[in-house]
Amino acid sequence: MVFLAGVISINAGEVITGTVGAGRTIEEGYAAARACAISQLAVLASHLGSLDAVKNIVTVNGYVNAVAGFPDSPKVINGASDLFVEVFGDAGRHARTAIGVPALPRNALVEIQMTVEI
Amino acid sequence: MVFLAGVISINAGEVITGTVGAGRTIEEGYAAARACAISQLAVLASHLGSLDAVKNIVTVNGYVNAVAGFPDSPKVINGASDLFVEVFGDAGRHARTAIGVPALPRNALVEIQMTVEI
Amino acid sequence: MVFLAGVISINAGEVITGTVGAGRTIEEGYAAARACAISQLAVLASHLGSLDAVKNIVTVNGYVNAVAGFPDSPKVINGASDLFVEVFGDAGRHARTAIGVPALPRNALVEIQMTVEI
Repeated sequence: MVFLAGVISINAGEVITGTVGAGRTIEEGYAAARACAISQLAVLASHLGSLDAVKNIVTVNGYVNAVAGFPDSPKVINGASDLFVEVFGDAGRHARTAIGVPALPRNALVEIQMTVEI
Repeated sequence: MVFLAGVISINAGEVITGTVGAGRTIEEGYAAARACAISQLAVLASHLGSLDAVKNIVTVNGYVNAVAGFPDSPKVINGASDLFVEVFGDAGRHARTAIGVPALPRNALVEIQMTVEI
Repeated sequence: MVFLAGVISINAGEVITGTVGAGRTIEEGYAAARACAISQLAVLASHLGSLDAVKNIVTVNGYVNAVAGFPDSPKVINGASDLFVEVFGDAGRHARTAIGVPALPRNALVEIQMTVEI
C-alpha cells in the first residue's frame, strides 16, 4: 500500500486558486481536481518507475475550497475520479470522500490525497 | 482491511440536511451520524455477506456540517461511534477524528468515512 | 500499522484554542501542532512501551482552525512534522495533508491524526 501526500491543484507550475461558489465554477473545480490527479499519477510513476505497478486505486480524499453550504463537492472531485477510471479502468475505482473546506494551502482550489495498492 | 467510501446522512431515502448551530441541534446531528453508521453497516453486510466477518472497526472519520467555531463535533459523531460499540462491543471501538466543515455533499448534516478489519 | 485517533492541541492540561487569522498567529499554530505531535508520541509510547518500536511515520493529517482563505496551513502543521523528523530522523518523514477547517473539538487550534508503521 502506498500512502500519497495531499497535492494541491497546479497547472504548468501555477497554483489553480480560488473558491467554488465565489468566483470559481464547478467546471473549473473539476479541471483543478483533474490536475491534482495528474500530479498524483506523476508522483506515482516517478516513485514506482511506471504506472504498470499500480494494482488498484484504494482511497481518494478530495477537498474542495468552497463557500459554506456548497452541495456539489462530488461533482468537483469527479475530475480526479474520472481520470483514474480512464487510466486504470475498473482498477481505478475507489472509496472516496468529497468535502468542502474554507482554506487550502496556497489558496488552492482543490486538494487530493490518496492511497494506492501496488 | 476494507476502506469504505464516505456516506452522507440519509434516512428513508431522504438526505438529512442542514448545519449544526444554524437550525440543527447536536441531538439532530447525533441522529444523522447514527444514520450514516447504519448505512455503512448495510454496505458492509452487503459486501461481506454478513457482519460476522467484521473483526474490528479501525478508523472513523466524521465530518459535521457546522457553523464556524462549533466545538462539539465529537458529541455529534458519537451517534456513529455509539452504534458501532452497541453492535460490535469492544471490537467496535476505533481511532476517530471529528471535524467541523462548512460544506458536505447534497448539504448533508453529517458524513462518515471508515476503515474496517475483516 | 497503528491508526491513531485525532488529538487536539493541549498544553499542561489546557486546550490551546482559537483560530489562525483571527487572534492567533502562524507561530502559535506551529506551537499547537507541535503540542499535538508530543501528545501523539505519548500515546504511542504508552501503547507500545517505547518509541523504539516505531519503524516509520506513514501519514499525518493536520487540521488547522483557520479563517476562510487562510493559505498557510502547511506552515502550521510543520510544527508536528518537524518534531517527527527531530525524533525519528528520516523515519519521521511522512505523507501529509494540511487543511484549514472552521471548527475543531473544544475550539482547539489544531488537530493531528496519524498512521504509524511498527
